[in-house]
Amino acid sequence: MGTKSKIISRTDPVIYSESFSPLSESNLKFFKDNGYLIFENLFSRDEINSLLGELKKLTLNESKKKSPQFILEETGKEVRSIFDIHKISEMYGRLCKDKRISNIVRQILGSEVYIHQSRVNLKPGFDGKEFYWHSDFETWHSEDGMPNMRAISCSISLTPNYEFNGPLMVIPGSHKKFVSCSGKTPENHYRQSLKRQEIGTPDKTILENMVNDGGIVSAKGDEGTAIFFDCNIMHGSNGNISPYPRSNAFFVFNSVKNKLVEPFCGLNPRPEYIASRNFQSVEPIENFLKDSK
Amino acid sequence: MGTKSKIISRTDPVIYSESFSPLSESNLKFFKDNGYLIFENLFSRDEINSLLGELKKLTLNESKKKSPQFILEETGKEVRSIFDIHKISEMYGRLCKDKRISNIVRQILGSEVYIHQSRVNLKPGFDGKEFYWHSDFETWHSEDGMPNMRAISCSISLTPNYEFNGPLMVIPGSHKKFVSCSGKTPENHYRQSLKRQEIGTPDKTILENMVNDGGIVSAKGDEGTAIFFDCNIMHGSNGNISPYPRSNAFFVFNSVKNKLVEPFCGLNPRPEYIASRNFQSVEPIENFLKDSK
Repeated sequence: MGTKSKIISRTDPVIYSESFSPLSESNLKFFKDNGYLIFENLFSRDEINSLLGELKKLTLNESKKKSPQFILEETGKEVRSIFDIHKISEMYGRLCKDKRISNIVRQILGSEVYIHQSRVNLKPGFDGKEFYWHSDFETWHSEDGMPNMRAISCSISLTPNYEFNGPLMVIPGSHKKFVSCSGKTPENHYRQSLKRQEIGTPDKTILENMVNDGGIVSAKGDEGTAIFFDCNIMHGSNGNISPYPRSNAFFVFNSVKNKLVEPFCGLNPRPEYIASRNFQSVEPIENFLKDSK
Repeated sequence: MGTKSKIISRTDPVIYSESFSPLSESNLKFFKDNGYLIFENLFSRDEINSLLGELKKLTLNESKKKSPQFILEETGKEVRSIFDIHKISEMYGRLCKDKRISNIVRQILGSEVYIHQSRVNLKPGFDGKEFYWHSDFETWHSEDGMPNMRAISCSISLTPNYEFNGPLMVIPGSHKKFVSCSGKTPENHYRQSLKRQEIGTPDKTILENMVNDGGIVSAKGDEGTAIFFDCNIMHGSNGNISPYPRSNAFFVFNSVKNKLVEPFCGLNPRPEYIASRNFQSVEPIENFLKDSK
């Protein structure tokens, strides 16, 4: 755990657009104040089943599992995450363009957007590991050279999220502060940190204060529920001893006005599949299953 | 994880008494079917504050922390549990006699009862570890020589239990099956298993079936909430990365008609503070703070 975190107020906007569509004024105000928005059943069960079927094919492919985009559990057997899922799978490539996602993100960020990172997370039942509190922006700024807080993550539940199976937890309002964690980033830190975050984590006192102010909200709900959250919100998840697996598709959209520069930590950039430098705009489509554009 | 668990139907009764007081007929039916009962706010906030104050004194006592009754987190610093709390603390000694607890247990077990084990658990915020699924009776039978399923645990929350801080989870109805776990019990297994259960855990398939049948219930609620649960119910808890600590007082009441014999695993009995062979009956008192008897 870091012991010398610094905390400063956010200077970047949270909402970059003045348009009220597709999100309403109250949606936007909620996102501005809390740093996240949850939409239950944004995708239908049939749509989720298609996405799961696609995933099953991929995880059964033993040769693909050897590629660096496939992150295995510490046991070395089960797939924990697949990065670059929007490139590895055509279906997931269309999913991130689906208007139900892309237009919300474009509205909040007030510009065209591109995919900074994509992945699916497959948190197995019984021994899913915890993921400690962190702000993504801290890493994306330092290790990837993302200049400003103008990126949004969208996580789509592929399995029901219960209180029992380690759902994503966010601290509402925490996106309005920036916590700079202590400790020099070691070379190739990402290889370890994708499995378990151990260094550069925020101070307990800072987290306690944030939770005193904003509480904790967990993204529970049926499969098909989507949560959009600001790049700087403090989030994490507990482990999962329940038999219920927890899978989600995860896309990070960055504004094309916020393209990556050289990493601010002075190290080499992380691989393309973790922090893309392909800044091609996402072109919205009506529906990822019906529209094959 | 065990790979050769066996599952058999329970032959012992769950409810040993035909009296309907203090528990109602519907309370008893619920316990019989589900294996647990939760009473919110069984103890007042003032009462809980007294119990916490007593605990704080104990955990600050560095010389006491060296005694075997004090179990420390793997870090070696924070106190995870204090065993024999009813002997170490006069207040906790009276707590287990309080009629709100003792008479419920005496009713279900249909006899006088004694304390088989007592402890307080102090699950700290931020890095509280998980505790994998287990039935207590499996261990108490094998390692302690408890002949039959005629014991009940009572856990009293000393802190609020949220979905975020790793509350006790039970699988309703799982007390009606007995799962015998594979693996020979090593000598002095308890020293490790008090920290983290790694061997002799039930098969995933058995757990999946149990959860399919009964679901999972977590004991959430304000401080002062009490859960009574059968010695054979499958239970566990997730880790806790939230800042919220989770503390509880935990008493195992065994029927005086179910006194320990030689351990069935063939090893030496575990220490007195883990499995008592002092079979003195618990004499109910009105109130643990007001009645100093």
